[in-house]
Amino acid sequence: MRVFSTLTSSSSIANRLSSLRNAQLSSFIHSFRAYSSLMDANEDSLRRALAQKQSSVDSQSNAVRALKAAKSSKPDIDAAIQILNELKLEKSSIEKQLRAAVAGSVVDGPINGEAFRQTLANTLERRLFYIPSFKIYRGVAGLYDYGPPGCAVKANVLAFWRQHFVLEENMLEVDCPCVTPEIVLKASGHVEKFTDLMVKDEKTGTCFRADHLLKDYCNEILQKDFSITSEKTAELKHVLAILDDLSAEQLGAKIKEYGIAAPDTKNALSDPYPFNLMFQTSIGPSGLSPGYMRPETAQGIFVNFKDLYYYNGNKLPFAAAQIGQAFRNEISPRQGLLRVREFTLAEIEHFVDPEDKSHPKYSEVVDLEFLMFPREEQMSGQSAKKIHLGKAVSKGIVNNETLGYFIGRVYLFLTGLGIDKDRLRFRQHLANEMAHYAADCWDAEIKCSYGWIECVGIADRSAYDLRAHSEKSGVPLVAHEKFSEPREVEKLVIAPVKKELGLAFKGSQKMVVEALEAMNEKEALEMKASLQSKGEVDFYVCTLGKNVSITKNMVSISKEKKKEHQRVFTPSVIEPSFGIGRIIYCLYEHSFYMRPSKAGDEQLNVFRFPPLVAPIKCTVFPLVQNQQYEEVAKIISKSLTTAGISHKIDITGTSIGKRYARTDELGVPFAITVDSPSSVTIRERDSKDQIRVNVEEAALVVKSVTDGHRTWADVWSNFPRHSSVSVEE
Amino acid sequence: MRVFSTLTSSSSIANRLSSLRNAQLSSFIHSFRAYSSLMDANEDSLRRALAQKQSSVDSQSNAVRALKAAKSSKPDIDAAIQILNELKLEKSSIEKQLRAAVAGSVVDGPINGEAFRQTLANTLERRLFYIPSFKIYRGVAGLYDYGPPGCAVKANVLAFWRQHFVLEENMLEVDCPCVTPEIVLKASGHVEKFTDLMVKDEKTGTCFRADHLLKDYCNEILQKDFSITSEKTAELKHVLAILDDLSAEQLGAKIKEYGIAAPDTKNALSDPYPFNLMFQTSIGPSGLSPGYMRPETAQGIFVNFKDLYYYNGNKLPFAAAQIGQAFRNEISPRQGLLRVREFTLAEIEHFVDPEDKSHPKYSEVVDLEFLMFPREEQMSGQSAKKIHLGKAVSKGIVNNETLGYFIGRVYLFLTGLGIDKDRLRFRQHLANEMAHYAADCWDAEIKCSYGWIECVGIADRSAYDLRAHSEKSGVPLVAHEKFSEPREVEKLVIAPVKKELGLAFKGSQKMVVEALEAMNEKEALEMKASLQSKGEVDFYVCTLGKNVSITKNMVSISKEKKKEHQRVFTPSVIEPSFGIGRIIYCLYEHSFYMRPSKAGDEQLNVFRFPPLVAPIKCTVFPLVQNQQYEEVAKIISKSLTTAGISHKIDITGTSIGKRYARTDELGVPFAITVDSPSSVTIRERDSKDQIRVNVEEAALVVKSVTDGHRTWADVWSNFPRHSSVSVEE
Repeated sequence: MRVFSTLTSSSSIANRLSSLRNAQLSSFIHSFRAYSSLMDANEDSLRRALAQKQSSVDSQSNAVRALKAAKSSKPDIDAAIQILNELKLEKSSIEKQLRAAVAGSVVDGPINGEAFRQTLANTLERRLFYIPSFKIYRGVAGLYDYGPPGCAVKANVLAFWRQHFVLEENMLEVDCPCVTPEIVLKASGHVEKFTDLMVKDEKTGTCFRADHLLKDYCNEILQKDFSITSEKTAELKHVLAILDDLSAEQLGAKIKEYGIAAPDTKNALSDPYPFNLMFQTSIGPSGLSPGYMRPETAQGIFVNFKDLYYYNGNKLPFAAAQIGQAFRNEISPRQGLLRVREFTLAEIEHFVDPEDKSHPKYSEVVDLEFLMFPREEQMSGQSAKKIHLGKAVSKGIVNNETLGYFIGRVYLFLTGLGIDKDRLRFRQHLANEMAHYAADCWDAEIKCSYGWIECVGIADRSAYDLRAHSEKSGVPLVAHEKFSEPREVEKLVIAPVKKELGLAFKGSQKMVVEALEAMNEKEALEMKASLQSKGEVDFYVCTLGKNVSITKNMVSISKEKKKEHQRVFTPSVIEPSFGIGRIIYCLYEHSFYMRPSKAGDEQLNVFRFPPLVAPIKCTVFPLVQNQQYEEVAKIISKSLTTAGISHKIDITGTSIGKRYARTDELGVPFAITVDSPSSVTIRERDSKDQIRVNVEEAALVVKSVTDGHRTWADVWSNFPRHSSVSVEE
Repeated sequence: MRVFSTLTSSSSIANRLSSLRNAQLSSFIHSFRAYSSLMDANEDSLRRALAQKQSSVDSQSNAVRALKAAKSSKPDIDAAIQILNELKLEKSSIEKQLRAAVAGSVVDGPINGEAFRQTLANTLERRLFYIPSFKIYRGVAGLYDYGPPGCAVKANVLAFWRQHFVLEENMLEVDCPCVTPEIVLKASGHVEKFTDLMVKDEKTGTCFRADHLLKDYCNEILQKDFSITSEKTAELKHVLAILDDLSAEQLGAKIKEYGIAAPDTKNALSDPYPFNLMFQTSIGPSGLSPGYMRPETAQGIFVNFKDLYYYNGNKLPFAAAQIGQAFRNEISPRQGLLRVREFTLAEIEHFVDPEDKSHPKYSEVVDLEFLMFPREEQMSGQSAKKIHLGKAVSKGIVNNETLGYFIGRVYLFLTGLGIDKDRLRFRQHLANEMAHYAADCWDAEIKCSYGWIECVGIADRSAYDLRAHSEKSGVPLVAHEKFSEPREVEKLVIAPVKKELGLAFKGSQKMVVEALEAMNEKEALEMKASLQSKGEVDFYVCTLGKNVSITKNMVSISKEKKKEHQRVFTPSVIEPSFGIGRIIYCLYEHSFYMRPSKAGDEQLNVFRFPPLVAPIKCTVFPLVQNQQYEEVAKIISKSLTTAGISHKIDITGTSIGKRYARTDELGVPFAITVDSPSSVTIRERDSKDQIRVNVEEAALVVKSVTDGHRTWADVWSNFPRHSSVSVEE
């Protein structure tokens, strides 16, 4: 699945895997870089202005020196110094602007990206949304535990995914093991090609991702050294742009050229070499059956295609889905939850007739409008724009209806979770990012403090995967279309005459035969014409790497009519693939905000999770510790349980303001405060508005709002408002 | 977690791991064998009768031969032959009874266990409840995929588990990675001790579990060879009974003694040696950080104890829970879904003050009665009996209230899923099955065609696990009880005088010091008394393996009064641990039955899943293909969706009887058949009863029954009955 090869692995996979499943994942970093380098015209002009100002400063310095040497008059010298100082001031102002432009401000609002992220991370770890795994043993990079609220959020996200995709689309869900025998991952290409380039500290043996070192080197200079020439600036930006296309040799050469050493020790580095990112193991006791922890869940679906097709009544289209763990043995995990060694994927493989990629429910999404970033806009330096999905499909920007349908459904899914639609875009893969077999690819990218993060990949992978497993296993993974009555079809028949070819080409005969049989209709008919007119023709055999001469007696080419009762074909597969951990992390960023406490002496943290996502939906607080109030709280708790609303009672003696703050920080949307035996208040988290409701009604009101049957605004205007906020924070 | 070490691994672990986490798992096979050998008194008496009859036959044969040799009269010889034939007939009749007794009849009803299991397995695989993984590549033993209905059943079982345990008990759920660094599993003991004994075919290298070969050999003879003496019978049964306690050497000796060879090749076998059952891998690129795929999920909870305790407001008791994959690299997986290499566990670690193991909700389960099989009953050859849970706890049969509470909750969970309460028992571990630190252990065992299968382990593991990780990590995993006012406590102070001990014991000084400090109060006070009276005392130092002589000047022992402000202690942990795949498989067996089709010409398969478990709750069938009916079906489908009822419309033209049969085989509890525009029928799967309901009401009726708010009997008596069953199967 595409989502992760970009960020969690293998920035330089793209070129080397062009015919591989992972190829088209390629790297969005590439295009994003190209794009951003066009976008920061401001930065470029500042760099140019700085260089100019520097040269003005230099020449003015010389002028001052010359005046002094010439023992000019003091007023003249003073005037020149005055100009020099002004120039220096101007230079320092430009430098300041440039520094700000380079650092950027990823998050809107007053706090910068780094500080925002740190505050968020502290909150998430303190409240056990997630924590580094095996902390008491000093942890393992790239492995995280989800604590209670994180688990609940994850369960809610997965439940919504299942509802939104599996149930609403009648998908066939499967659940396959993580342990996978080598042959499956040989067929998929992972054993050979699923690698990142690595370098080693030649003395300590510490390993680094080669592209990371080069990238860090370039960024460091670009961000901190403002004395470099604009040629150097352009060169470094170019290296960043082509980083993912560099071969091991090219990467090694650049590292040597720039004199990049091991980060901590400054020791010399080895040449880059590929490291396979799969966790390897051995199945059974013999040690003779290598296996791997799956790097994606998709293969489990492909190998079951035949059974699933049968289960679906031998009908297309249908989709299979799987939620499960996947594993990548990253060389050096970074970026917290975004690049990890074990993660949850949710993948869909929608199998469809390649000749009919319409979708029955397409009309339900056709009128959606959201940020899309087609290939052309990326190439021409524009930014993502709001586009009408139906128009994108009808204009051919999105390859087909089914792909468009899933793009629309993914948009609804992510915004339904609470992802900000203005920080969500669908970016089309550039031609060089896609494998040759892929028809089209779009990534749902979410903007967070780390930049635009690829969280869902939606690809039309054509017949590639099923064909790969058909070939390796010998089991045909195909679909049949039975004709209601037999059809007469004209078929091209290429019949190489093996005897003649054997005489002419001896050991190379097999390659020539295969090349002849592989001709498409146009090529074959051209050859037929040439042979008829000239009796002989030059023919390029790629497996021999040269032309051979084919004569009339060596091959017969004809078109024949045949009656066919059915069409047998390999289905195309359209694959939406979701990185659940990444989506959740971005959701944390989009949901988190701070507001001053009532006293104004501290900043309080809030997650504005929609009820769908919130780890619990409601808290129940007896205002003061008193048996009567606690009894009422228990009654309400019971009715909440009956209504299926997850909730918690908090009977601690802490002030109500503190209790509100505590649950705001967990993103609990509603709080019921018991301050009388007969009626209670319900407080909404973000507005802090409170209404007054009878005890009997409380659970149902909360249920109607959390289920989405009513809005808070509706409830707010229909119940008496509770304005005594003196107890509030 | 205990559940699996018995059946999925390591039958002979018990003895070797006595101080280890897995030790108490030991083997229920052992006690079950002991028990069953007492139970089959019938078989024993038949064997004895057969042996007697055989000797009668032999002596009568001799008599006949003697008469013939003596040329006796024909009538005499004929009479003797007549007797011989009668004896032979009698012998053959006993043989038949014995064969039946040995084979047993595991499943009630007319079909035997093997045939029942095969029919069930065929149905499960054909309907994709599960299938062998990677089938197109000929699969891998011990790995299975869950197909669509299997996935749905599993999701339902887990959702119920989460509701029944995590939500109702406010447990702290966590989600930790499968990839685990070595140090964690060294602390838990798995790296050193989590092994099974293996033998290799000396020529082909094929591996076998040593205990399996010996077990198969004994069973084969006991089941098929009726000519063996009763001494031999007793010997083989004894071997089966002690199988799990045999060391590598003893197992090897038995294999030699019986001349057991490799099953297929008949080649000689190697000596048994331990094979670690964890899948090993390497974390990161250096190859220097060994890791394993976790063999259980519990360790992830233990290492997080400190954070979870803090999250819970530093209060005990509290429970943490985790659902996730676990991995065991079985030497030779068997028994389908019961012994697999990757499986889903759901584990609870309930942390409690060792001095107070009461449970606040104990009263909710105290009056449950179900089959329990205490240690004493097993030892005295009785069978499991219905016991009142409260009495079992108050009599001390079950060690404490919290353990009792969880036993009761597990009973409610399993029977809630549809496990037959008459084929469910709680078996207490025998003393030799438990680790020395465990306070008490009970397994929920479910009877299926493979016998009694351990599906849930419920153990009071005392402080073992937390202490092990405290020691290894150096991080104290302890709880605090703050006293409301300081308490004066009398403390034993043992102060070895190192100088004197050093002079006396030199290099052994450290061991002597440790042994002295490790004395309990009674031992220390006895030593004090002896030293006072005699001035010298013999003292056994286990680390030296000998007695040393301790004199008065070497140690000071006293009791001192101290003021303490808090008590610091390692909590005990009570661990219910669920093998989800095993529970699901047993559920399949308990839910599956066959009934004749209406025509009586075939047997139809039915799963009697309760609605909670059923993969979908309802199907909607337009009786005939007709637009009007299909419109009504769509309206009903919409209201089912709104009501949150998973369902499917089947508009195929197949006969309604066939459509019913098809969904009965998936265990769908209700079918709505549209046979008029205004009203429809609702059919219940097991009774095949049908009621007539208005279109508008249909979804709500189904919802009320699937949610458990009404029973079918209630619905059945409140709606008009639909008796036209002519269309039915």
